[in-house]
Amino acid sequence: MLRTHTCGELKKENEGQIVSLCGWVSTTRLLGKSLAFIDLRDRYGITQINFNLLGKFSENDSAEKKQSGWESNLNLINKLGREFVIQVKGEVVERKAKNKNIPTGEIEVEIHSADAITILNESKTPPFTIEDESDGGDELRMKYRYLDLRRTPIKNNLLQRHKVGQAVREYFDKNGFADIETPFLIKSTPEGARDFVVPSRLNPGEFYALPQSPQTFKQLLMVSGFDRYYQVVRCFRDEDLRADRQPEFTQIDCEMSFVEQEDVLHMFEGMVKHVFKKVRNLDLPKFPRMTYADAMKYYGVDKPDTRFEMKIVDLTPNPSPKGEGSENLVRGKGFKVYDDAELIGGICAKDCAEYTRKQLDELTEWVKRPQIGAGGLGYIKYNADGTLKSSFDKFFDEASLKKIAEKFSATTGDLILILAGAETKTRKALGELRLEMGNRLGLRDKNKFECLWVVDFPLLEWNEEEQRWFAMHHPFTSPKKEDMDWMYNGYTEKNSAHAPKANAYDIVINGVEIGGGSIRIHNKELQQQMFKVLGLTKEETEQKFSFILNAFEYGAPPHGGIAFGFDRLCSMVIANEDYIRDYIAFPKNNSGRDVMLDSPSPIDEKQKKELGLK
Amino acid sequence: MLRTHTCGELKKENEGQIVSLCGWVSTTRLLGKSLAFIDLRDRYGITQINFNLLGKFSENDSAEKKQSGWESNLNLINKLGREFVIQVKGEVVERKAKNKNIPTGEIEVEIHSADAITILNESKTPPFTIEDESDGGDELRMKYRYLDLRRTPIKNNLLQRHKVGQAVREYFDKNGFADIETPFLIKSTPEGARDFVVPSRLNPGEFYALPQSPQTFKQLLMVSGFDRYYQVVRCFRDEDLRADRQPEFTQIDCEMSFVEQEDVLHMFEGMVKHVFKKVRNLDLPKFPRMTYADAMKYYGVDKPDTRFEMKIVDLTPNPSPKGEGSENLVRGKGFKVYDDAELIGGICAKDCAEYTRKQLDELTEWVKRPQIGAGGLGYIKYNADGTLKSSFDKFFDEASLKKIAEKFSATTGDLILILAGAETKTRKALGELRLEMGNRLGLRDKNKFECLWVVDFPLLEWNEEEQRWFAMHHPFTSPKKEDMDWMYNGYTEKNSAHAPKANAYDIVINGVEIGGGSIRIHNKELQQQMFKVLGLTKEETEQKFSFILNAFEYGAPPHGGIAFGFDRLCSMVIANEDYIRDYIAFPKNNSGRDVMLDSPSPIDEKQKKELGLK
Repeated sequence: MLRTHTCGELKKENEGQIVSLCGWVSTTRLLGKSLAFIDLRDRYGITQINFNLLGKFSENDSAEKKQSGWESNLNLINKLGREFVIQVKGEVVERKAKNKNIPTGEIEVEIHSADAITILNESKTPPFTIEDESDGGDELRMKYRYLDLRRTPIKNNLLQRHKVGQAVREYFDKNGFADIETPFLIKSTPEGARDFVVPSRLNPGEFYALPQSPQTFKQLLMVSGFDRYYQVVRCFRDEDLRADRQPEFTQIDCEMSFVEQEDVLHMFEGMVKHVFKKVRNLDLPKFPRMTYADAMKYYGVDKPDTRFEMKIVDLTPNPSPKGEGSENLVRGKGFKVYDDAELIGGICAKDCAEYTRKQLDELTEWVKRPQIGAGGLGYIKYNADGTLKSSFDKFFDEASLKKIAEKFSATTGDLILILAGAETKTRKALGELRLEMGNRLGLRDKNKFECLWVVDFPLLEWNEEEQRWFAMHHPFTSPKKEDMDWMYNGYTEKNSAHAPKANAYDIVINGVEIGGGSIRIHNKELQQQMFKVLGLTKEETEQKFSFILNAFEYGAPPHGGIAFGFDRLCSMVIANEDYIRDYIAFPKNNSGRDVMLDSPSPIDEKQKKELGLK
Repeated sequence: MLRTHTCGELKKENEGQIVSLCGWVSTTRLLGKSLAFIDLRDRYGITQINFNLLGKFSENDSAEKKQSGWESNLNLINKLGREFVIQVKGEVVERKAKNKNIPTGEIEVEIHSADAITILNESKTPPFTIEDESDGGDELRMKYRYLDLRRTPIKNNLLQRHKVGQAVREYFDKNGFADIETPFLIKSTPEGARDFVVPSRLNPGEFYALPQSPQTFKQLLMVSGFDRYYQVVRCFRDEDLRADRQPEFTQIDCEMSFVEQEDVLHMFEGMVKHVFKKVRNLDLPKFPRMTYADAMKYYGVDKPDTRFEMKIVDLTPNPSPKGEGSENLVRGKGFKVYDDAELIGGICAKDCAEYTRKQLDELTEWVKRPQIGAGGLGYIKYNADGTLKSSFDKFFDEASLKKIAEKFSATTGDLILILAGAETKTRKALGELRLEMGNRLGLRDKNKFECLWVVDFPLLEWNEEEQRWFAMHHPFTSPKKEDMDWMYNGYTEKNSAHAPKANAYDIVINGVEIGGGSIRIHNKELQQQMFKVLGLTKEETEQKFSFILNAFEYGAPPHGGIAFGFDRLCSMVIANEDYIRDYIAFPKNNSGRDVMLDSPSPIDEKQKKELGLK
């Protein structure tokens, strides 16, 4: 080894030892002409090198010798640039001015001569500063990702990611799960997102596909009797990339046999708790459950951030006298927007009644942005003096406003914000507005973790455009028992109102979905019927899925599982943030390019010809 | 959970408990008309179910009731086929006839009624028997791999593989290695084997490549300062498949900074020892070292099986009087084959002098097979009576034969086998013959593990056909210090005689290479020179490798590492066999096909069009 210690481990007890350190020159500082300090950095920390430029000479050494020693020392220190890689040999001494901020702050390594330093490699000046807050823009840092990874925050993200992975494996080992690797060169069976494909040279004209997930393989492993399986595995999805999506991502993939939904939830809730305990030393309480229907109703989204309340209140009068919201508070007042809207709903922002015209205008602009797409923003201010003031005072008297305010349990000082329009769009917009107000009011606490199971997802969604049912989770998800009849007799009805619910569940932390799964179909007939419901012909079903249908004929056990987005789990556990790119060593940009490698790139004609692509 | 226990855990102490078990019907046995046994199997074991078909009735129950109970019990047992998935509820009782061969052999689960059994899924009769020695052929078992995986030997292989992986990770964790994931969609830079490529839909006409190994990424991680990295990672190589090669395979990939060769050997020898200790409870002694030159000389191969001696003896007279083998024992005797041969060499098979004509003919046929390619086989029998008899008696007198025998340290009873011909081919043939004789003589002991480092590999090989140098390991391997001058001044000389040696090493167990690595180049100028030596133009170098050359300008530390073939490591550790397919859950066949999935397969025209492949 070129070193005896790392730059993170020398302490006072090492005093007097002669050590070798290797690392990168973080800074050099000249103090007058006789002393220089070098901060030497490696993965483990920073150690200060104290370089006595005057050298160590005996009484009888000539002035010339001393002068030449000093000169070569000074030359060396002037040569050492930022990010040079050096080896230093010297004695560990106690520092005069201690640095309490770093573990090695009590000591320094003392040297007296240029000979104590070996330059292992030089460095050009990096294109951006290797500091916590770098001056480099996104694109530049991606191009020089290997330098970006030297920055402490990114470096720590990856080292912490390793710890998350360790904790995950530890939990699975403890619970008898076997890590079994499934193939990457599989068969293209697009049902949902697009597959990446790989031309086969040995089988011209034919293609492998890269897995979107090992779904069918883990089910086959259950058919094989492996009982409990997991894998931390790369998956691929050729999607039109949205911000912070990656064409390749890592999944923690799990499956269990002879289980019911409750068993799966229990097992994987345990995993998430174990990870939080190991990585952040946090004890999470039992995760609450919420139905998909409630999530949509109260939060406008299937992955609610439950760190704060501010639930959506539905003001739409219900034609059914028994239904909730049946009381008519908003219609027939002559306000056409509310009279015509499919959905009228709002949220109550506590203590925001004093919002200024400007703030409200700004919020109105915010909801009108194409990403949100609301037509406008209504509001009711419940003033401190008990009066009420709304954006639709022309149509509503104060008593009517009060009734609405009561519906929101609003009190003086509160601000009610109302959106109206088409059902799906408005519900989503309300959900977004709720999160935005949560941000503005500082309710999305970075130190708080609210985990949640969302359950009872719909099995299918009707797609108007393609005029067919789509699987909400994937086509292997089992319908609830009570909806089995629909699968055979109800599915020709073309709307979602009576569509079956699924034994499917998502795990959500602070509004971020970190995993989802289901109890699977394990019966050939039902699986075939599912493909039929999804509009696949017998031939397509046979061509794409015969292997799994065949497998179901040879004793497939009841089974279910879950898959976690490992990248997202890491970003949430490590920093409570929903931005995965900083947790991946070599990510791609929003166009799916690796700007460091300059990939994808053209391949040569010979290669194309061999692959039968010409 | 549908079960209270697995089929592998019930013991005498569970007696009297009411339990639920789930699993596969392995066998059913009717004993007369009153009793049936079911062997219920899951991943964990087999539990016997004792089914009293007569049922449990009270005194006053009618004969009719009893009869109908018996009938429904009998119906059920007749219905239960092999591989049906069932749930059984019953009481644990002590067995009368204990089975000492299985952990659950002391007990059985007693049931009295068909109601105690729930059929969770039926099964058709499997296409082959689910037994240790199945009656299914290779192709059939591959098509129904999910059933093949139910067989105990294959199931255990995969569970043991999981254990090997655990042991590997445990060792790396202990030694401060960080598991960092590198990308799968990278840039095509073929240098050696062919890349699999992936067309990019978002960047038409451009391609990603699948990694043959994460080589450049792990080097970049060293440049980033991660210091110690590992990954258990899938790699891809589009080769013309040979027996027992897979287009995708798993690698244990490792790299360390600030190390010299000795540090790397020490660290990873430790890993292999740790794995053998954890998985097989074996303490391996220190691994010997052998130079590549010695391996080729004495074993005819760069991965010698050192479980047995039988070293190759070179009989070629050396023109230099000082060189080994300089004594002329075989030339000038009038035997043209030896007079003309570039290499004459042999091995001494102990105690085989009594080989019959038939055995020798068979061996001759064996060396003449195209895979070995020898022209013929010479032999000298050192008979029990001290006389010598050879296949070339016409040309050699007994004194000459005796001299040769001495060279082999042969004694009475031994058989010397001699091959002659072109150097490279003959050396290889001698290596193969040595292994074959090792097999015939039972010297390749399944219970013995001889690990070995082969070091000082050549850096480059001259390719006559393409008239250029090829990297023996890969182009990032560093030459030995003493050969540095050749890299700049000697490389135009077109033969391997003075070609440099590399800081490269392989780890070999019982003649199987399980890993290899090197100390890398970390200097831009040398790396560029290496590409030049390999015949790449400046433009090609720039286009393919600019990212790594750039990285070397910003403070690349000295570094080195190794990669293990995980599949092969598993097959060796688990069963001391060199056949990886039985250690992979879903392998491909020799044409790179997955016969279960029927993949690769054509994709539809729409997909091709989207990818710009039409």
